[in-house]
Amino acid sequence: MQTYIKENQKRMLDELFSLIRIPSVSAQPEHHQDMIACANRWKELLLMAGVDKVEIMPTKGNPIVYAEKIVDPTAKTVLIYGHYDVMPAEPFELWKSNPFEAEIRDGHIWARGADDDKGQSFIQAKAFEYVVKHNLLKHNVKFILEGEEEIGSPSLSDFCTEHQELLKCDVILVSDTSMLSADLPSLTTGLRGLAYWQIEVTGPNHDLHSGHFGGAVANPINVLCKLLADVTNEDGRITIPGFYDDVEDIPTEERKLVAAIPFDEKAYKQNIGVDELFGEKGFSTIERNGFRPSFDVCGIWGGYTGEGSKTVLPSKAYAKLSTRLVPHQDHEKIGQLVVDYFKRVAPKTVKVDIQSLHGGQAYVCPIDLPAYQAAERGFEKAFGKRPLPVRRGGSIPIIATFEKILGVKTILMGFGLESNAIHSPNENMPLDMIWRGIEAVVNFHLEFDKL
Amino acid sequence: MQTYIKENQKRMLDELFSLIRIPSVSAQPEHHQDMIACANRWKELLLMAGVDKVEIMPTKGNPIVYAEKIVDPTAKTVLIYGHYDVMPAEPFELWKSNPFEAEIRDGHIWARGADDDKGQSFIQAKAFEYVVKHNLLKHNVKFILEGEEEIGSPSLSDFCTEHQELLKCDVILVSDTSMLSADLPSLTTGLRGLAYWQIEVTGPNHDLHSGHFGGAVANPINVLCKLLADVTNEDGRITIPGFYDDVEDIPTEERKLVAAIPFDEKAYKQNIGVDELFGEKGFSTIERNGFRPSFDVCGIWGGYTGEGSKTVLPSKAYAKLSTRLVPHQDHEKIGQLVVDYFKRVAPKTVKVDIQSLHGGQAYVCPIDLPAYQAAERGFEKAFGKRPLPVRRGGSIPIIATFEKILGVKTILMGFGLESNAIHSPNENMPLDMIWRGIEAVVNFHLEFDKL
Repeated sequence: MQTYIKENQKRMLDELFSLIRIPSVSAQPEHHQDMIACANRWKELLLMAGVDKVEIMPTKGNPIVYAEKIVDPTAKTVLIYGHYDVMPAEPFELWKSNPFEAEIRDGHIWARGADDDKGQSFIQAKAFEYVVKHNLLKHNVKFILEGEEEIGSPSLSDFCTEHQELLKCDVILVSDTSMLSADLPSLTTGLRGLAYWQIEVTGPNHDLHSGHFGGAVANPINVLCKLLADVTNEDGRITIPGFYDDVEDIPTEERKLVAAIPFDEKAYKQNIGVDELFGEKGFSTIERNGFRPSFDVCGIWGGYTGEGSKTVLPSKAYAKLSTRLVPHQDHEKIGQLVVDYFKRVAPKTVKVDIQSLHGGQAYVCPIDLPAYQAAERGFEKAFGKRPLPVRRGGSIPIIATFEKILGVKTILMGFGLESNAIHSPNENMPLDMIWRGIEAVVNFHLEFDKL
Repeated sequence: MQTYIKENQKRMLDELFSLIRIPSVSAQPEHHQDMIACANRWKELLLMAGVDKVEIMPTKGNPIVYAEKIVDPTAKTVLIYGHYDVMPAEPFELWKSNPFEAEIRDGHIWARGADDDKGQSFIQAKAFEYVVKHNLLKHNVKFILEGEEEIGSPSLSDFCTEHQELLKCDVILVSDTSMLSADLPSLTTGLRGLAYWQIEVTGPNHDLHSGHFGGAVANPINVLCKLLADVTNEDGRITIPGFYDDVEDIPTEERKLVAAIPFDEKAYKQNIGVDELFGEKGFSTIERNGFRPSFDVCGIWGGYTGEGSKTVLPSKAYAKLSTRLVPHQDHEKIGQLVVDYFKRVAPKTVKVDIQSLHGGQAYVCPIDLPAYQAAERGFEKAFGKRPLPVRRGGSIPIIATFEKILGVKTILMGFGLESNAIHSPNENMPLDMIWRGIEAVVNFHLEFDKL
């Protein structure tokens, strides 16, 4: 297999770079045409990789690329899910090279989507190409690549409901998560859910002079800061009544397993450049971002933000808020709980408007699932070590949706690393992880046929 | 005088509009050439108004326009101060007409600087023109117009020190404040001081994925909100230790005078569109913004502020902070107090950097000053009512500087109205206030000669 990779390396990278070059930023309406272009490019690449048929299927939002290779209608089917949309690349000035023109430096690919999820979906496509070209495939393979993952997959749930027959499968593979490190292969067995809001606080109906009015009129930024500050306490707990109602305590046995995962706090802190970590009292870092919910202000703005000083008592202040949720917390219930909370605690001196933007449920994959074990063996062949089962803090809401609508479990075989800076400037992917990823997925396919 | 105004109205407005057309925004470096252009335009207008000589004098920052008409070297001298710079006009999309192309609608001029301070300085220039053209001037008049008032007048203090002889005068006139209302003429007898900071909170060294890290790493926006929320308490008091040390209680007699000022709370609230006012417990609205200090977040930003949702745990969060200060509070002492406070209370999970951007002292004008009384009579002739003495919440730091360096009191004869929306979108000035303002200033000059 390594010979194949060596001989085809240049072509494969050219193919991946052609995907990266299309700025398929789903959150920004001006990139609408790029979404279509990216779906079309995937169509070409999947055909070249060996699918029998590929179709760009419309949704209310961005289209979904569906492809399949049916080797035997009576055989089992693996559905591979990925997404062709990417996060916005702002702030552009912090990138060392053009986010939409992949550059290879120090053995890494640097670009928006190099990992999440163009790079990782590409691993799946190239592993498929290998097994097809070498006549090794004994099960059917289907692909769906959506263009709205980074905005909460608003169309995918309806798509699954409408196309249940088409999407029928025995297991779903997703490469959109990360490993503990390049030396510590791991498979993700849990994902957090997500709820996301935008809040708008309006004070006076226009910006006021902070001298003429300051001290006598509530300032919406001051009020917003107070509202957001009150959501968490000194112990890092979320104070919104009812927020933890459905959160399960971590079982004693699982806490032991988690404690056994090697975790280098010093390296972790150094990597992100902080002197001290902070989180919910009574939990370790791995527990905090795998098993416990979180509350983050993802963005805030209001008043004068230009150069120099402007003495203004602004009319409005805004923030984007997210919570990560854990199994049994329902994102719709939490969504409403938080909306109700802010409306209830807002002082009468301002108007508070809060909208749920999107959300998704948490997910858990049992480690005794045969397909999970095939993935374990695939990883072991590629990385030389049995992968550790790990719950991760990120959210892929659609995984819970797949389970609900299609009744199928998903294996999260992610090849990212924390240093890949996904969603951030200078997103990157080590080339080595791409080649080893392909090897792991090829071996998954071979192991899956043995089940 | 009304005949003169009627006959010259069109020419005068053309002159004012030519000033407005130059976007002399001192806070934005890209407008550097506009500052020079605006100073030059003032030079032309002052010559046309009848000064003997005018000079554009360099400073370390934007130049100062100096002009004089010496009718008798042994006579008294009135120094008129104004500023030709304006606040940024952002956000542009909220303006109903181009902020730098004055438009007359509903009897108002709508433009950035229509009031603050192009419109108001223009009133002084045209009143001067009237008394010169009609040979009524028996005292000397000097003008200084600076280009850095909106950024804290960083060069004016040195300019006054270097040119004490040139600026020698008996009283200073400034039109850069507002009246209680068009029907309630008032003279400003007090101004608040100001201190202004920018704070930067840094968490991780790059933006993180809020799923992978959320709950385990301090979020700089969450931290900033908490830091800012803690500065004030439920009673609207500033909690920074030592902040009120030099604040004097309002004397019982002065509280009575203040209570006698007609104040229509309903109209005040309606004008700014709020349901409830908020301020320091135990004080009236007029006391809160005239006699008591305030703390306002003038701007805040950090993380993702674009369309849609981006799940990010940002690296940085920023805010611009201001306090209005009252007599005896020293802006430099308070500046340092606040810097020290934030450095002291910042948690170790983030890095906090805070810089003082500018500041100025508060000011009080005694109402038994003869020149003040001349102004009172001038207003009474133009408005038909004796103006009320009022302490205002705004800051013109240079007024305290004039007193310190030149040893002269300033009469604050402002013709603005609260509805003029200075520093905000849709700044405006009623035409009527310009004509009546000119009449009041002309009468001041006549009354001043009687002293």
